[in-house]
Amino acid sequence: MSRSINLAVIPGDGIGQEVVSEGLKVLSAVLPQDVKLETKEYDFGAKRYHATGETLTDADLAALKQHDAILLGAIGDPSVPSGVLERGFLLKLRFAFDHHVNLRPSKLLPGVATPLAGQPEIDFVVVREGTEGPYTGNGGTIRKGTEHEVATEVSVNTAFGVERVVRDAFARAQARPRKKLTLVHKNNVLTFAGHLWTNIFNQVAKEFPEVTTDYIHVDAATIYLVTDPGRFDVIVTDNLFGDIITDLAAAVSGGIGVAASGNINPSREFPSMFEPVHGSAPDIAGQGKADPTATVLSVALLLRHLGYDGEADRIDAAVTADLTERAALGARSTSQIGDALAARVAG
Amino acid sequence: MSRSINLAVIPGDGIGQEVVSEGLKVLSAVLPQDVKLETKEYDFGAKRYHATGETLTDADLAALKQHDAILLGAIGDPSVPSGVLERGFLLKLRFAFDHHVNLRPSKLLPGVATPLAGQPEIDFVVVREGTEGPYTGNGGTIRKGTEHEVATEVSVNTAFGVERVVRDAFARAQARPRKKLTLVHKNNVLTFAGHLWTNIFNQVAKEFPEVTTDYIHVDAATIYLVTDPGRFDVIVTDNLFGDIITDLAAAVSGGIGVAASGNINPSREFPSMFEPVHGSAPDIAGQGKADPTATVLSVALLLRHLGYDGEADRIDAAVTADLTERAALGARSTSQIGDALAARVAG
Ligand SMILES: CC(C)[C@H](C(=O)O)[C@@H](O)C(=O)O
Ligand SMILES: CC(C)[C@H](C(=O)O)[C@@H](O)C(=O)O
Repeated sequence: MSRSINLAVIPGDGIGQEVVSEGLKVLSAVLPQDVKLETKEYDFGAKRYHATGETLTDADLAALKQHDAILLGAIGDPSVPSGVLERGFLLKLRFAFDHHVNLRPSKLLPGVATPLAGQPEIDFVVVREGTEGPYTGNGGTIRKGTEHEVATEVSVNTAFGVERVVRDAFARAQARPRKKLTLVHKNNVLTFAGHLWTNIFNQVAKEFPEVTTDYIHVDAATIYLVTDPGRFDVIVTDNLFGDIITDLAAAVSGGIGVAASGNINPSREFPSMFEPVHGSAPDIAGQGKADPTATVLSVALLLRHLGYDGEADRIDAAVTADLTERAALGARSTSQIGDALAARVAG
Repeated sequence: MSRSINLAVIPGDGIGQEVVSEGLKVLSAVLPQDVKLETKEYDFGAKRYHATGETLTDADLAALKQHDAILLGAIGDPSVPSGVLERGFLLKLRFAFDHHVNLRPSKLLPGVATPLAGQPEIDFVVVREGTEGPYTGNGGTIRKGTEHEVATEVSVNTAFGVERVVRDAFARAQARPRKKLTLVHKNNVLTFAGHLWTNIFNQVAKEFPEVTTDYIHVDAATIYLVTDPGRFDVIVTDNLFGDIITDLAAAVSGGIGVAASGNINPSREFPSMFEPVHGSAPDIAGQGKADPTATVLSVALLLRHLGYDGEADRIDAAVTADLTERAALGARSTSQIGDALAARVAG
């Protein structure tokens, strides 16, 4: 384990700057004295795009590659046409750094409100494939803007890409007490991709005899997420299904204010990136209203990825304690929440 | 309006037979004496597939085409490999009869339990495109079963196909009190299809100045469906997104026991098909446990499609009344619920 962390920080747009500041505050507070934390801030996002037309250049990628990990606030602004920053920055980075394990834990913490009746127990993690499926940008348009326009989107799925993420998910399931893994797909309709996913899932399952497995269609999975979320332990799924069900998972387990995510390259050939699931929320930006908890939990994922398990545990515990008391504390600003968490992890 | 209904009945698999019987019971009870109801039963589903290897032949399609409408129970059985009946029957029929308007209303009726806290008001309808998108079966597999396998799924979207369903959705929104239409897509990632959908949506919107419009990404839509379902009035979306969000919509508005759907060809060139959203539920088949309400509500959609609005209203009212009293009635069998509804619509 290296005793220094060289972190790329991308505050981004909207509330990104505010929540990232608190994330860094907690990170500094939790790290032992002998761990040297270096951070470098990058100006990606809407401002840079408007000023230069750039979203993420080759030189940017080369610079980012030098870091141990990346912490991102949020990217996206209504002033930029839909898709430009998403495809030009967020997805470009995931693909360039081969972030094939998109990790999204969902845990309903004490004191956190859920839209579900009866405060069910929720504690699962979604392993979303991050570099294939309908997200590859394959496809195109002919006769654009005419009544004969045809637009296609190609979902690309490879044995290589599916196997590595399925294997990662099995390993995560194996390491959890319940040892259960659910494949979510739509293999009765998307039969080409569905068979590939299902076959590989069943093959890899043989190597993990202790892990209980099941399969659910994505449409049915959304039902279970609201009627019986406790049935899930680890879920593995494709890029688009993962996108959809993790927003729903975040909603039922306390909202996107507390949903963290990691865009992980387990090989560490490239730095992994950690970010809250929420977006840039321009409507509340700059007002100190944003909840930094999701960013702080993303910092915990980052620490765990870099091998600082004890520090990650302390952040998780601090967040749990803070949320438990939250109801009694009334409304707090972004930095008040950050201060409270920093105090807890330091203390 | 024709004073006869020539109905194709497809009980199908599992609980299909039971729920369809009750649907027909209520249909007979609600129709005025002078409307001649003719029904012909077809044996599609797992049994026929095992006996003959057939799912839906050209001769079958020619026979079905003679009917005014089709009532379906459920198709699907664990004894048939995943995809065979879905692609070979359900989707084949939707495509062959050009069922491009897949209509799925969601209304939380009084007395119906929802997994959401606080019993929110829910009353919206999803217009799901039924003949394009990722459901076309385009795509394929190379190097199957090897470590170099590549499987693709192609989402095909045409201006023709998108415009007609968007126009249908605008007309439905226009006819409702709130006059609001939401486009659900993922246009920031699936930019080719996303631009086509968004452009056509915005163009058609100009013809419906009274309809308020908005746009939501599919992942965010799943959040709103559990945190603020009341914000939706009419939703229009693509085939796959529609599949996913209508299962979630059914779950939050009382479960798939009450979710009805229509696979509609508005031109009436081909008969439209009406079916409950639920599947064949083989685990409870033949036990009189299945709730026929979703099938009965599908019969109401069928009647409305054929111009029997008054009769459809009576069925809807009977279901509402029945559900309101349900809690007090205790457990009832499939046929007891059907009898109660038939008595109400007749009375
Ligand atoms: C912003 C968008 C590109 C992104 C995605 O679709 O992956 C977001 O929704 C997410 O889930 O991280
Ligand atoms: C069974 C399957 C083919 C079907 C679909 O995906 O459309 C079902 O889920 C539905 O929603 O009607």
